[in-house]
Amino acid sequence: MGVTEDFDLGIDRIINEIKNRNARKVGLQFPEGLKRRSFSIASEIENKTGAEVQISANPCYGACDLDRQLLETMDLVFHFGHSTIREDDGGKVIYIEARSPVDLGEVVRKAIPLFEGIRIGLITTVQHVHKLEGIRRLLEEVGKEGVIAEGDSRIAYPGQVLGCNFSAAFSEDCDEYLYIGGGQFHPIGVALCSKKPVIIADPYLNEVRKVDTHAIMKKRYAAIGKAMNSKVVAIVVSTKTGQQRMELAKYLLRSAKKKGLQAYILTMDLVSPEQLLNFKVDVIVNTACPRIAIDDAGRYPAPMLTPPEFEIVLGEREELVFDEIRGE
Amino acid sequence: MGVTEDFDLGIDRIINEIKNRNARKVGLQFPEGLKRRSFSIASEIENKTGAEVQISANPCYGACDLDRQLLETMDLVFHFGHSTIREDDGGKVIYIEARSPVDLGEVVRKAIPLFEGIRIGLITTVQHVHKLEGIRRLLEEVGKEGVIAEGDSRIAYPGQVLGCNFSAAFSEDCDEYLYIGGGQFHPIGVALCSKKPVIIADPYLNEVRKVDTHAIMKKRYAAIGKAMNSKVVAIVVSTKTGQQRMELAKYLLRSAKKKGLQAYILTMDLVSPEQLLNFKVDVIVNTACPRIAIDDAGRYPAPMLTPPEFEIVLGEREELVFDEIRGE
Repeated sequence: MGVTEDFDLGIDRIINEIKNRNARKVGLQFPEGLKRRSFSIASEIENKTGAEVQISANPCYGACDLDRQLLETMDLVFHFGHSTIREDDGGKVIYIEARSPVDLGEVVRKAIPLFEGIRIGLITTVQHVHKLEGIRRLLEEVGKEGVIAEGDSRIAYPGQVLGCNFSAAFSEDCDEYLYIGGGQFHPIGVALCSKKPVIIADPYLNEVRKVDTHAIMKKRYAAIGKAMNSKVVAIVVSTKTGQQRMELAKYLLRSAKKKGLQAYILTMDLVSPEQLLNFKVDVIVNTACPRIAIDDAGRYPAPMLTPPEFEIVLGEREELVFDEIRGE
Repeated sequence: MGVTEDFDLGIDRIINEIKNRNARKVGLQFPEGLKRRSFSIASEIENKTGAEVQISANPCYGACDLDRQLLETMDLVFHFGHSTIREDDGGKVIYIEARSPVDLGEVVRKAIPLFEGIRIGLITTVQHVHKLEGIRRLLEEVGKEGVIAEGDSRIAYPGQVLGCNFSAAFSEDCDEYLYIGGGQFHPIGVALCSKKPVIIADPYLNEVRKVDTHAIMKKRYAAIGKAMNSKVVAIVVSTKTGQQRMELAKYLLRSAKKKGLQAYILTMDLVSPEQLLNFKVDVIVNTACPRIAIDDAGRYPAPMLTPPEFEIVLGEREELVFDEIRGE
């Protein structure tokens, strides 16, 4: 997601951490939307600490995607824009979250008439988690109980969701959910995982609406249908630090072979359509970031399924569930 | 380069190596043109050895680009289509070169009238190196002396060139060169490095012609010219096993800063235009694969220079030389 706001990235804290740890080699890693700020941050670090700075220009979509080269060669790495998912980062990574200054009150007030229940689960992404307590109080004023629930170990803050993890929408019994933030993917994930109504309050569009999961489910069943008579299966494993699900891939490989399919494990860093063009396959099973099969499936040279969807093809599962990468 | 011939990849040798080394986990890495053969090779390995196979789907353009994840997790890795450049591969990598069965005699005979000198340096890529001795004899029959010279440590066979290394066109004094093979880049490199006439004999087009370096030099001087008043410099370092020139990058960084430029080191795996879009720079200096600045410069958001070209911008060099990654 492109981040265009002027987030406060807390440069003073960055300088202090470098000085306190006496780090001489400092790596910086940014999502696309923050890369334009990398040079001024690098210059400030160099000027104020004398440390040598290297900036990773690899694509970066989450804390699941720590830059291994920086981890290996730098004393300290600042990973911007994402909260920790508690991957093994050698104690070298400091996560600099980008906290949005955008006001959420107005759009949340607009959402209130859409609620039917009393207990409302509050869900958002890391940019807005610091505002959830204020929203809870706002709901209390109108007689609603805002619930800010803990997720599993992959989730840094109560009420937070990732594209691969909706555990904060499971741990408390709620009547419905309020998702605050931009984008379509996260609220759809909350709806499909919780099987409860979800209201979106989008502060960027100043728009409220109820999540409709019909269109996405239609697409997923169509992909499953197309994959039903597959003979050649590519099981894709990303080697990114927090996306690697090799054990799951091996389990799917064994299951596919038992059913007489030709199945192969393809490993790669970033999963992209171009990299799969030269493999002749009937179906691609994606064990990497769960968003890929949902957001980009149409760009791939064969139907792309999530692991639970492929289990349906294999006849090993009946109910379609949303793919997640869960912590502990 | 897309490889579409039916190369003999020597599957029996692959099976024997796996059995001899008792390898239980086997990684396969292919350039794009050979990826379509990966599944049949994987199946044959599984059936004949019982080993577990993983296929890398990362892009792969040379032996400079060993798949680190396979190196870390597999007992043995087969790297197809390229000869060794003697990078540290932990003794785990077996290079399966693709030897072309294409006949070269006809096109070489066609090239003979174009020679003006007597001592002809014979140069080709790994697919055809096994045929150089035959071509030497063929030239001998018409009174020419074919010279097949050793390159440096990065070059596996006498007479072989890589896109980053033309050392086999330096080590003997020749009147001119015969480049046998497809493509434009390698013979241009031979001409610019040796400063001698180069005749191309292209067996795929059945065409012979003399290399003209005028167009490429015009482009390079234009890029240097555009970069002359740069203020912000991105020095790109690839982390690929055989492309990483960090020491050179740091030297260029220091030189640029001495001249009052703002310069930053950007690290990445694959160097691509998309990854540089969000950095606002006046010039990109590419220390990774030397071909990138020559073949793809137009796709980048700022002029892209090779290290020696950037030294000209800095006023530290006068003569334009072709960028190479040299061995010992």
